Amino acid sequence: MSEARIHNFSISLDGFATGEGLSLDDPFGHAGHRLHEWMVRTRFFHQQTGEEGGGRGVDNAIAAWFEPGIGAEIMGAGKFGPPGWQDDAGWKGWWGPNPPFHTPVFVLTHRPRPSIEMAGGTTFHFLDAAPSEALTAAREAADGGDVRIGGGPTVCRDFLAAGLVDFMHVVQVPMVLGRGVRLWDGLESLEDSYDIEAVSTPSGVTHLVFTAKPR
Amino acid sequence: MSEARIHNFSISLDGFATGEGLSLDDPFGHAGHRLHEWMVRTRFFHQQTGEEGGGRGVDNAIAAWFEPGIGAEIMGAGKFGPPGWQDDAGWKGWWGPNPPFHTPVFVLTHRPRPSIEMAGGTTFHFLDAAPSEALTAAREAADGGDVRIGGGPTVCRDFLAAGLVDFMHVVQVPMVLGRGVRLWDGLESLEDSYDIEAVSTPSGVTHLVFTAKPR
Repeated sequence: MSEARIHNFSISLDGFATGEGLSLDDPFGHAGHRLHEWMVRTRFFHQQTGEEGGGRGVDNAIAAWFEPGIGAEIMGAGKFGPPGWQDDAGWKGWWGPNPPFHTPVFVLTHRPRPSIEMAGGTTFHFLDAAPSEALTAAREAADGGDVRIGGGPTVCRDFLAAGLVDFMHVVQVPMVLGRGVRLWDGLESLEDSYDIEAVSTPSGVTHLVFTAKPR
Repeated sequence: MSEARIHNFSISLDGFATGEGLSLDDPFGHAGHRLHEWMVRTRFFHQQTGEEGGGRGVDNAIAAWFEPGIGAEIMGAGKFGPPGWQDDAGWKGWWGPNPPFHTPVFVLTHRPRPSIEMAGGTTFHFLDAAPSEALTAAREAADGGDVRIGGGPTVCRDFLAAGLVDFMHVVQVPMVLGRGVRLWDGLESLEDSYDIEAVSTPSGVTHLVFTAKPR
């Protein structure tokens, strides 16, 4: 069974996954990179960017769940580029010529464009579709693999609200962001559908792991 | 130095410390007692209510920080009684004849009334005052002891925003409450003023401990 999974999804104590004022220079707005520092320090991240080193502790082990078994990703328009990227015909995402996905990636947008094949196995497809339709398309492309719901928060929330997420790994970072886009809005009683584990690590973050109960 | 401390302050994943629809029958509204189940299971809580038993694990050890060194408490009107208690001249709080405070307690309300002396050392005083004024009054009454900021969320938030809190213990419960009163609103960058530790326990909750940095 192909699962829909969310990984390495960082939020502040007040539940914001991204800040205010997103732009080409500030992909996460006033949040900067503070929500992801825990991950940047891991060996997993270093390997993704072709660097030596990086921490090999619990944060690393959990971060590395990101890849195994994934056959496709779905992401929102807000993750693929800064506001207005749809007007730039040459925009190919934030990640350079070899994006860290290495699978088909379905970008949800009301203004689809032709697919873009990148190095390393990533192909960006553009889709104007509801969550369940997008998941069907991504599952087909994943060829038996799982589908990562890659964010941002609005997309994760939509898939959670639709009951489509089998596994979610959220990382709570000890900061109060104050404003931006929240993960939890509209998800009252989410705990009824999931077994939830929490583990804090020496870096100061708390990993929350949601596993869907049998439906 | 007399410190201002917050203890056993339970919130949901989405930051709500109390639900919607507070009433005499539902002191926490639709949240019910779900935010406090972790504490009800501790030996600390059992002792407070005169019962035998209760868990003696890490949750208990942390919960029991509530008492030592405290010489007075400050609480909001919303903690002292259900909406409208100010119209009931006989209302003496939720806690029966022997409340679990055993110190002077300052209730912040725009409609002060004469003090009420209870059994066990608790005296309720009623004060229409700003946080810093209330803290001065409570410190005086605490006679060298610390002052507990007892909640609810609005009162905690006001004291935090005013930079008056030296220590805060928040307990995050793995549920999404969806609506109610949030702790974190208006506290952007709170982490700049505190060292923060997080520890998850086998009960599933995560204890967050904030210790003020030297000012």
